[in-house]
Amino acid sequence: MTVPGTASAPPAPPALQRLSLNQWTIRQWDLRAAVDGCARHGVAAIGLWREHVADAGLARSAALVRAAGLRVSSLCRGGFFTRPGWLDDNKAAIDEAAALGAACLALVVGGLPDGSRDLAAARARMAEAIAALVPHARAAGVRLALEPMHPMYCADRGVLTTLAQALGVASRHPPAVVGVMLDAFHLWWDPDVLAQVARAGSAGRIAGFQVSDFLVPLPADVLLGRAMMGEGPIDFPPLCQAVTTAGYAGDVEVEIFNGDLWSADPDEVLGQVKQRYATLIAPFL
Amino acid sequence: MTVPGTASAPPAPPALQRLSLNQWTIRQWDLRAAVDGCARHGVAAIGLWREHVADAGLARSAALVRAAGLRVSSLCRGGFFTRPGWLDDNKAAIDEAAALGAACLALVVGGLPDGSRDLAAARARMAEAIAALVPHARAAGVRLALEPMHPMYCADRGVLTTLAQALGVASRHPPAVVGVMLDAFHLWWDPDVLAQVARAGSAGRIAGFQVSDFLVPLPADVLLGRAMMGEGPIDFPPLCQAVTTAGYAGDVEVEIFNGDLWSADPDEVLGQVKQRYATLIAPFL
Repeated sequence: MTVPGTASAPPAPPALQRLSLNQWTIRQWDLRAAVDGCARHGVAAIGLWREHVADAGLARSAALVRAAGLRVSSLCRGGFFTRPGWLDDNKAAIDEAAALGAACLALVVGGLPDGSRDLAAARARMAEAIAALVPHARAAGVRLALEPMHPMYCADRGVLTTLAQALGVASRHPPAVVGVMLDAFHLWWDPDVLAQVARAGSAGRIAGFQVSDFLVPLPADVLLGRAMMGEGPIDFPPLCQAVTTAGYAGDVEVEIFNGDLWSADPDEVLGQVKQRYATLIAPFL
Repeated sequence: MTVPGTASAPPAPPALQRLSLNQWTIRQWDLRAAVDGCARHGVAAIGLWREHVADAGLARSAALVRAAGLRVSSLCRGGFFTRPGWLDDNKAAIDEAAALGAACLALVVGGLPDGSRDLAAARARMAEAIAALVPHARAAGVRLALEPMHPMYCADRGVLTTLAQALGVASRHPPAVVGVMLDAFHLWWDPDVLAQVARAGSAGRIAGFQVSDFLVPLPADVLLGRAMMGEGPIDFPPLCQAVTTAGYAGDVEVEIFNGDLWSADPDEVLGQVKQRYATLIAPFL
């Protein structure tokens, strides 16, 4: 497929070489606009979302990204194993990740089934669901990235709540097929996080690293509890250093769900993403 | 001090023998009203709050509680070690707990100092603050109850986020002086919670057990994210069984911060507390 009018990105400046724009940070951009925005701003990698990819079409999305020379640091997201049709949907997500050349497919595992309080059973089911996806992922050459979620989402979004837990589930499968997504927003509070990051590195499990800050106080919709790095309590240097020491050398996604950013000028948002990344993240990688 | 007109509570029915009303659940009652309410409803224990005690006067509060024959399952709360004057304030809280005959003084350790992101330092300071209180608590015969808080409060309320972390801090001190407060609302999501409850029991560290449910979705003010047992995702039977197996035989406080309950009829609230406790908690203790 030819994609007229798509310019290749210029080389990213050194401080931005590993920066990836997670597309949901500027979700008001469609895929074409996000790809063009990355090219315009010298951002060399992008974290794609299935919703935007579906809107643009899978083949066209892959062609746009390729033509722009962008790395795809992740596809967001598979998981939600409590939903009807989860298996087919996750297989489709794996195929999309393969077509897009994504470094991993991020998995948000889902919460408790409707009406259930059996957290142990939900966690067992989650592990079974991942096991069920492994053959398809391996055949497709796609790495699944288990994403431990902040405990405030345990009931309705993710019964996978700590990095230790994620590594336990991942350990049953080859590291090339099942890794973990480290998201500072979800993990920063964990007294054990630095040790678990080291463990993840030793096990070759770090599939991706996402950064954003934590809003204090939280907004009415806690899904939008993320902020630009530097606007919250997260101490990025020790976390970035731990991730680097653990051997992770891949892209670092800025992933912020924030209503103010979604109604702001996208180029200004991306400009601020670059500035904050260059000062608060890159020096510590 | 004589307290005319205060009737002793009748014996609690078997299913309610270990029920304690945490006073903040019906914070619209002043201390006298709460004591009378417990007597009227056959509730044999109460978790007191310093605010209400201060309003009623310490000596009078102690006399009211004693005259009613109520056990004091906890005094809430000390901690907040980042605030100016924290040491004197905590010593005063210890003295109050002693005067009230409270089974423990619950400690909410506080979040990050203003403008700081140094979580490791805040945690170290928290441990130092507890160590600084231990001699006073020991001399007063008061048990400090370290309360791990839900991670969503890490930045602004409690850098103590997991039971494992709390037990680590407590381990430096005698169990009779430093224990832990198990609050289902704060702990339910933790994949390691049942194992850590067992560890707490083996170490003789369980100072108290509080129950409430978790609101989904969370309200705009996440401090009010608690609900009546049965209204949320918490699976109480395995947690109650683990607490019992761990050897805890003390009072079980119902502690709910919920705007709807605070504007409801207090006797109806306490009636519902008793009903939910008798069906969802007591059978599993």
